[in-house]
Amino acid sequence: MPFSINPPPRLLMGPGPINADPRVLRAMSAPMLGQYDPVFRRMMRETQELYRQVFQTENESTVLVDGTARAGIEAIFVSVLCPGDVVLVPVFGRFGQLLCEIASRCGADVRTLQAEWGTVFDRETIEAGLREHRPKLLAICQGDTSTTMCQPLEWLGALCHSYGALCYVDATATVGGNQLAVADWQLDAVSVGLQKCLGGAAGISPITLSDSVAELIKSRMHLEAGIQPVGYVPGSGPRIASNYFDLAMILGYWGQGVNHHTEATSMLYAAHECARILVEEGLPAAQERHRLHSRALRIGLESMGLRLYGDPTHRMQNITGIYVPTEVDGEKVRSTLLAEFGIEIGTSFGPLAGVIWRIGTMGYNAQRIPVLQTLACLSATLRLLGMKLPSDGIPEALHEYQSQDS
Amino acid sequence: MPFSINPPPRLLMGPGPINADPRVLRAMSAPMLGQYDPVFRRMMRETQELYRQVFQTENESTVLVDGTARAGIEAIFVSVLCPGDVVLVPVFGRFGQLLCEIASRCGADVRTLQAEWGTVFDRETIEAGLREHRPKLLAICQGDTSTTMCQPLEWLGALCHSYGALCYVDATATVGGNQLAVADWQLDAVSVGLQKCLGGAAGISPITLSDSVAELIKSRMHLEAGIQPVGYVPGSGPRIASNYFDLAMILGYWGQGVNHHTEATSMLYAAHECARILVEEGLPAAQERHRLHSRALRIGLESMGLRLYGDPTHRMQNITGIYVPTEVDGEKVRSTLLAEFGIEIGTSFGPLAGVIWRIGTMGYNAQRIPVLQTLACLSATLRLLGMKLPSDGIPEALHEYQSQDS
Repeated sequence: MPFSINPPPRLLMGPGPINADPRVLRAMSAPMLGQYDPVFRRMMRETQELYRQVFQTENESTVLVDGTARAGIEAIFVSVLCPGDVVLVPVFGRFGQLLCEIASRCGADVRTLQAEWGTVFDRETIEAGLREHRPKLLAICQGDTSTTMCQPLEWLGALCHSYGALCYVDATATVGGNQLAVADWQLDAVSVGLQKCLGGAAGISPITLSDSVAELIKSRMHLEAGIQPVGYVPGSGPRIASNYFDLAMILGYWGQGVNHHTEATSMLYAAHECARILVEEGLPAAQERHRLHSRALRIGLESMGLRLYGDPTHRMQNITGIYVPTEVDGEKVRSTLLAEFGIEIGTSFGPLAGVIWRIGTMGYNAQRIPVLQTLACLSATLRLLGMKLPSDGIPEALHEYQSQDS
Repeated sequence: MPFSINPPPRLLMGPGPINADPRVLRAMSAPMLGQYDPVFRRMMRETQELYRQVFQTENESTVLVDGTARAGIEAIFVSVLCPGDVVLVPVFGRFGQLLCEIASRCGADVRTLQAEWGTVFDRETIEAGLREHRPKLLAICQGDTSTTMCQPLEWLGALCHSYGALCYVDATATVGGNQLAVADWQLDAVSVGLQKCLGGAAGISPITLSDSVAELIKSRMHLEAGIQPVGYVPGSGPRIASNYFDLAMILGYWGQGVNHHTEATSMLYAAHECARILVEEGLPAAQERHRLHSRALRIGLESMGLRLYGDPTHRMQNITGIYVPTEVDGEKVRSTLLAEFGIEIGTSFGPLAGVIWRIGTMGYNAQRIPVLQTLACLSATLRLLGMKLPSDGIPEALHEYQSQDS
């Protein structure tokens, strides 16, 4: 018989998941409620209202999808898209490729724009793509953790609308640590996960849909045969090609209590607490906190003689790419850091696998202690493996913190 | 700002979710681990091995799908079925209808057999259906909570195979409380959830696949473009029409660490602990426990003068249907029981909505105290609402327990 769950000490400084906030872990251990219990329905409404604040929108259709972050993406794509619909994906990393993959599985006609990894798109390039491809939907990541780049989005919604396109953004990796103004930026659909700057666990995906996307989806409502009332008339739009990800049904579940899945109670508790913590801190304060701790980390890393990856003007505020120095085996560094110090950092994908490390400063780990521990232990590891460093980065990082304090 | 999660006292005696075992709640509050941490990979392997024991199989392809119980169903259907494939669903309740719905969304040609609600299928009827429809897949619920009936399955796998059909069973509502011998019964694919007899929370779905189903699925492997190695050759079978539910990828994630989703860490912890608790008790002992507490509940209910629903020889061992007596408003009884005593019981769906109540005795609530509390408080509620009862059912239920003790 295996032992009960008993994780060893770990500081998760990779691209996510990161250490969950202890308040979120406690929320997940709260007792169950029935899914139609009035108290649970109230918690669902509270959660919707909290995520409207997180997303900076008043979208009525702000709900959770029971699955990891890519469940939210797929639910939106399969509920919005019909086979043959043109989708334009500006790809600047592995998670843009994932958007193509998911849209393609929905039968969409996927067109792409490609940016060199480590850069983002300018407005003109995206406008040219919209003009050429005239997509039904433009889908893009805000932050692509594979390259640590953050795509500017302020102008994207209005630009898409001027070409008759809807605009979807995967903000899983950025929400909570970077500005994400869904209403001001006129984004039509956005999905996220909990396991990064929100300080929670993977397993539930908050999404928000503009009224126009919600109407489009509701026109495709085909209620399950088993629960149709007498005289039921389905929506005029084509039936959605998934039951689990049928957002027409899921919006009905959240809104009118239509029977669909059994809500993932503990994950909803987690989502509720993640948002409560963020709203309590305040969105601008949380963004500034992520900015500060990334900056301290980066100053420390550069003081160790390491070189940062990617366009410095478009970095995410919660993750840093670092070129693996030629003197060491990058995977050996990662495994030593994990085995000897309990600290996890990431490598990357595709052309960047083994080329860069990725260090996250997100959510509960966007704090001084995790940053300074990481710098000290990474320095110790590099020295252990034979590198000479000009500094362990600690005085420089501390100086950055002190200049903030004064 | 809403308060932090703080559920009121609730005894969940409906069809699920039920009160989670406190050990499972504690497991969910354990700290996060990175998904490629060797310790986490070990926990994943332990979880697979535990669920092989739960499913009574040696199937290598025993994994978890990150979503509620119907996520497991849809993952299997979309990964096994291609558009136009014939699926035969023997329907004996609302959750059989759901299987039709999910298969139909996958583009399958769905044929059904219908049993009167409150009954199950005999072997001859199913054999006639197999002979007539020659399906690729037969899909059936073991227990359909909407009717509280339990379908005999001992002969089903061999029967399906003799007609060249694969056999899928939704055992969400039965696993842990009723016998489910996947290998002996030659079932090809089975999926379950945690929120019933396993004493956990909804949000993750354990599944098991026979080697032949796993081979079929692996032949459809089309690795995401973003993570294909140089020289990658996709499988010869048609690509699976979902990325999230692509079991070829998910089996690769569990087996070889192929990058797919970020595992729902806390839900995996929950699944691990649910199975540990069941295996520690022993499967036969857990089934006997469910049988005992259902029997005590039923004796108590009948002693109150209530009439039980459905074929008494094919009842699930973990849920009981009761006709709502004509003297009371069934929904008023349920809301009073919840508001005054904190006890939740269910109604049902479709033709049984408002006609029966459903009382679960599952998982952590298949114990004397919840059963006796429920009988006492239901009696009190019925009397409060003006019914005359010959007994509150307590002496009779206690007598049943005492006859077991001696």
